[in-house]
Amino acid sequence: MRRVAIVGAGMTAFGEHFDRGIKDLLPMALSECLESVDKGMSRSDIQAAWFGELSTTDGFPSGILADSCGLIDVPVTRVENACATGNDAVRNAVYGIASGAFDVALVMGGDKVRESASKDTFWEWAGMTRDMAWDYPLALIAPANFALHVARYLHETPATREHMAMVAVKNHRHGVANPKAQLRYEITVEQVLAAPLVVEPFGLLDCTPQSDGAAALILVAEEMVDRYTDRPVWVRGVGLGLDRVMHQHKIDMTTFPATMRAARHAYAMAGLAPQDIDVAEVHDCFTGVELISYEDLGFAQRHEAYKLIETEATSVGGRIPVNASGGLKSKGHPPGATGVSQCVELFEQLRGTAANQVDGARTGLAHNIGGPTAVSAVTILGVDRD
Amino acid sequence: MRRVAIVGAGMTAFGEHFDRGIKDLLPMALSECLESVDKGMSRSDIQAAWFGELSTTDGFPSGILADSCGLIDVPVTRVENACATGNDAVRNAVYGIASGAFDVALVMGGDKVRESASKDTFWEWAGMTRDMAWDYPLALIAPANFALHVARYLHETPATREHMAMVAVKNHRHGVANPKAQLRYEITVEQVLAAPLVVEPFGLLDCTPQSDGAAALILVAEEMVDRYTDRPVWVRGVGLGLDRVMHQHKIDMTTFPATMRAARHAYAMAGLAPQDIDVAEVHDCFTGVELISYEDLGFAQRHEAYKLIETEATSVGGRIPVNASGGLKSKGHPPGATGVSQCVELFEQLRGTAANQVDGARTGLAHNIGGPTAVSAVTILGVDRD
Repeated sequence: MRRVAIVGAGMTAFGEHFDRGIKDLLPMALSECLESVDKGMSRSDIQAAWFGELSTTDGFPSGILADSCGLIDVPVTRVENACATGNDAVRNAVYGIASGAFDVALVMGGDKVRESASKDTFWEWAGMTRDMAWDYPLALIAPANFALHVARYLHETPATREHMAMVAVKNHRHGVANPKAQLRYEITVEQVLAAPLVVEPFGLLDCTPQSDGAAALILVAEEMVDRYTDRPVWVRGVGLGLDRVMHQHKIDMTTFPATMRAARHAYAMAGLAPQDIDVAEVHDCFTGVELISYEDLGFAQRHEAYKLIETEATSVGGRIPVNASGGLKSKGHPPGATGVSQCVELFEQLRGTAANQVDGARTGLAHNIGGPTAVSAVTILGVDRD
Repeated sequence: MRRVAIVGAGMTAFGEHFDRGIKDLLPMALSECLESVDKGMSRSDIQAAWFGELSTTDGFPSGILADSCGLIDVPVTRVENACATGNDAVRNAVYGIASGAFDVALVMGGDKVRESASKDTFWEWAGMTRDMAWDYPLALIAPANFALHVARYLHETPATREHMAMVAVKNHRHGVANPKAQLRYEITVEQVLAAPLVVEPFGLLDCTPQSDGAAALILVAEEMVDRYTDRPVWVRGVGLGLDRVMHQHKIDMTTFPATMRAARHAYAMAGLAPQDIDVAEVHDCFTGVELISYEDLGFAQRHEAYKLIETEATSVGGRIPVNASGGLKSKGHPPGATGVSQCVELFEQLRGTAANQVDGARTGLAHNIGGPTAVSAVTILGVDRD
């Protein structure tokens, strides 16, 4: 397969953009992305685009991207895969370039959750990301469906609500350094444990906020890299995995098979193993989900994720820093943008320019788990060793 | 680019499937598709899938495809691109195989429009396929936005409402032979002209029906073809094109630049020209749209589409038969499935097994124009000359 590199990356701040629509956020992210290309790039260099948007508030997604970004002559595919939308958009763009069809492609992700109509938007999304006939009428939307998993995980393993709280504390601490993060303040384990209960075992501070935002990446074929930069970030591997949609069909609630499938694809394509990962962005929509994902991604032994958080192995400065950006928990979570923004963060980490830099990071992994825990996407990025 | 072939194709009947959900229609189409593979194929051969669905009635689209079709171990990407969804799903699957990532991929398209809640569904779709701030509040949904184009087209060209009616008559005549078609009866020019007005210049019989249905294709890499068939149908070219979303920005209402862009991509990839096409499935959501598309696809000179319909060049038996399946007009139009079903029809035409066979067809073209006339997808298929 032809190699693909990222040569530019940018994003808006994540937060409550009540004064901006998706037509504002997309061009903002694209502008920052194009400006990040070392040797310059013009819009006319872009040959194709993939757009990750979970739902639309402004109308026809592909067309609105092309229209608002001045890319009318570019084919734009909208990809939707619940909360794995962003990294699946990256994956499809990689195939588009690797096939030889295009040399330069744009990947964007964007969503508006904090609309004035956000109550309607939320329920619409809750419906389209699970089974309408079974889980939805049972109220197994997020956070309730993730809570079923994490409650069982706490029962089966030594992990406790304190370990979950430590995830939130870590990610908020990381997010303080990130100017794009939505919740830039530190919190304590005591605060997390004392927060109002959302659904057992999640308190308010175990949950990601709702966010607006957009993110953008420029991917180019190996042969084109030198035209744009001397320090490309290579896409080493991409993977997508699914699982049963209805919770009545989940065999083991303490793991997400979708993540294991996505990771298997991505590691195989990259020729890498979990121990090769220096820095990771992991889908921490709820704190306990980050713990389970440590195991599904191979960073921890089964039922031993608590050891990573206890020993601060996943803090910046530790063995495998996770969510140096603040993660969904602090940075925010506009679903279509989240996966793309994880790759923006890794792009900066691997070039040594991140706001909360992990020293010497050469290989990074981005991970989403979405919908009724039935879809996951994993992207592995890397830079050449000097 | 590695060559990609279609080795299997199947679809449900299109129609009012009040007694079936998308979870029924998808497995029905997949079963017929797998059974059509000459040397046999099992579900476990499928390595990846792309799913075109415009909107969801049952919940999380990718997961529901995997779940209902027994493909839990297969990565499924949902592609959405208004009425160009189906052929854009084909396009992304082609890139996935051509890249080398997969050797065997499934493309499915499906939609339920005739839900009991179809009134809500229709307005939801109308919103997501145009600009919510401009065209939607102006009521420029389909058919009104297409009517603006066709009204101007009638003003600028020699084409008349009679020519439009002849498109409907032709496609209904073609559809009678197709057991999968929704409206299997002939109509006359007089009936079309006398039908109740929907929006000037469209009467009721100028409009496609609303439909439920699903369609499926199996695509394989060149190296794998012999394992499955001795008579592959090659994907010669794929293309996607966009255009301005808002009608205030359309410069010339008598053409669809999205189609011209999509066709340019597809013809270039195929190394073919319009005169090489033996049979075509053209997006006849409204009769006049088929006429305009003859020109945009290069089958007719500008403003001369009326000559093709007058001379019956686009009837089966003519020079370039269009919509031998009945087209959207007679066969029906479940938006996510439509583009895929066009390729199902071409697969059968090019193998000489179509219900309404075009003698000697060797190269076929499928075309969608969707949304606010702002997106088009074109796929060109072909068989080797003996």
